[in-house]
Amino acid sequence: MKHIETIKEMQSLALNWKRSGITIALVPTMGALHEGHLSLIRSACQAVQLHGKVVVSIYVNPIQFAPNEDYSKYPRTLQNDLRLCQEAGADAVFTPSNEVMYPSGNEDSNAPLRYSTFVSEEVLSKTMEGISRPAHFRGVTTVVNKLFNIILPDYAIFGEKDFQQATIIRRMVRDLNIPTQIIVSPIVRESDGLALSSRNRYLSPDERTQALCLSKALKMVQEKVSIQSFPAKELKEEIRVMIEKQPDAKIDYIEFFDPESLVPVVEVNTGTRMALAVYIGKTRLIDNAIL
Amino acid sequence: MKHIETIKEMQSLALNWKRSGITIALVPTMGALHEGHLSLIRSACQAVQLHGKVVVSIYVNPIQFAPNEDYSKYPRTLQNDLRLCQEAGADAVFTPSNEVMYPSGNEDSNAPLRYSTFVSEEVLSKTMEGISRPAHFRGVTTVVNKLFNIILPDYAIFGEKDFQQATIIRRMVRDLNIPTQIIVSPIVRESDGLALSSRNRYLSPDERTQALCLSKALKMVQEKVSIQSFPAKELKEEIRVMIEKQPDAKIDYIEFFDPESLVPVVEVNTGTRMALAVYIGKTRLIDNAIL
Repeated sequence: MKHIETIKEMQSLALNWKRSGITIALVPTMGALHEGHLSLIRSACQAVQLHGKVVVSIYVNPIQFAPNEDYSKYPRTLQNDLRLCQEAGADAVFTPSNEVMYPSGNEDSNAPLRYSTFVSEEVLSKTMEGISRPAHFRGVTTVVNKLFNIILPDYAIFGEKDFQQATIIRRMVRDLNIPTQIIVSPIVRESDGLALSSRNRYLSPDERTQALCLSKALKMVQEKVSIQSFPAKELKEEIRVMIEKQPDAKIDYIEFFDPESLVPVVEVNTGTRMALAVYIGKTRLIDNAIL
Repeated sequence: MKHIETIKEMQSLALNWKRSGITIALVPTMGALHEGHLSLIRSACQAVQLHGKVVVSIYVNPIQFAPNEDYSKYPRTLQNDLRLCQEAGADAVFTPSNEVMYPSGNEDSNAPLRYSTFVSEEVLSKTMEGISRPAHFRGVTTVVNKLFNIILPDYAIFGEKDFQQATIIRRMVRDLNIPTQIIVSPIVRESDGLALSSRNRYLSPDERTQALCLSKALKMVQEKVSIQSFPAKELKEEIRVMIEKQPDAKIDYIEFFDPESLVPVVEVNTGTRMALAVYIGKTRLIDNAIL
């Protein structure tokens, strides 16, 4: 497995693969890899089969974090990540630096000029995560666009846990005619229901127990809606009461929506998607499910 | 020469070329082709040499026109354009429709959802044309990004007449790591100095004569600056007086700036770039030169 740190080397490798007719799959990550990421890498291996190449990118993208968010404390576990990628069957791991991804420019006229190009999705990005984190998705679509141009993937694999992100990426790919097929891979959960996330390691043992309220809320609604439809308002209130029983839980949003347009629904049915974001102490967790 | 009207067909042709190791050059145009465009097509033929492929796109991109601009009356001369492309040695001409480029979406849930992804350059786009035409460059960078993803060019050729546009495209390519080399091809002029433009055909014979004030202003400043430097303010005033002698001329902007950063200079030297936009009657013309 190759470990590549420069855009130039990664892009020329990808171009050579492309010109030789080799299929490429990309798994974009921010590192701190867990079983959820490994399932994405396995999906990538399946997509490209025996003769294709799988690239994992590990990059904590600064422009998708707001100043008050956890960019600087986001877990970085590179040596372990590299070992996991190798074991999972990746052919290359790409770990660019910030300066190579976003040239900062400076007063010296010989330096490269400051980074100034952004990609934004302007409808789907306005709800849910986009309300709580206004610049987040612009950062995501920009960096994913860059990674696609560098790695030239035929397939890119995203996790269903970030459902809104995956939906926005699919819209971007359609709108910008990017020649990449997006594969959305199911959420991986602990045996007790907690969705895997690199941020779970922020949780104290007590918070870890309280964090189960997200997956329990999804399960409760799934069971109710499997029998009959309910007004979204009524379900939200029921979930609010349930989650607020946890002493350290603070709801950011609970939403019921059409899975393609992300438009909220008034009456919740099977086929509606539900998503929620909840702070457990200082840690913001998200989860979602199809009902 | 192939004439292709769908994204799907164009992209699968380009992908096949790419996977066979064939070099591709793109000349993006809005049609109404003239000798300036033909020189771009010849540059493209040179860039890819004997075994590469040259694609000309012809598309009057609605999102780069403001509602008060000339989108609907922009000249459309497709049959003549196709003949010129063939004569100049293009391998394919791509003429997509608006509905395929920007799905409009509608109430019918089976219809594709509305187009919503945009690419913007946020520094270089703020001066000159960006002031007069605020949404213009966002439209340009978005459509060029789409065309690059559809046609996968190793080379793309842009005309120097739209100097700010070419600079923004080069910045976008650098920032988004697009694997395409940008070639900027010199301005082609009539024998009396008028820069070729599809918009020249809007001019009456009298306006056509008055329009020479743009290239004459450039020439005058080139001659002055070849001897000594001048304050930008002084030169602007001199040009203003000269241009306003034309009864139907109205200056939009005159600017002296660094050719990479587009930052205005106070003192004009050799190596400074000059650009100007002038209305001649209802027709807005632009021109520029290195001093």
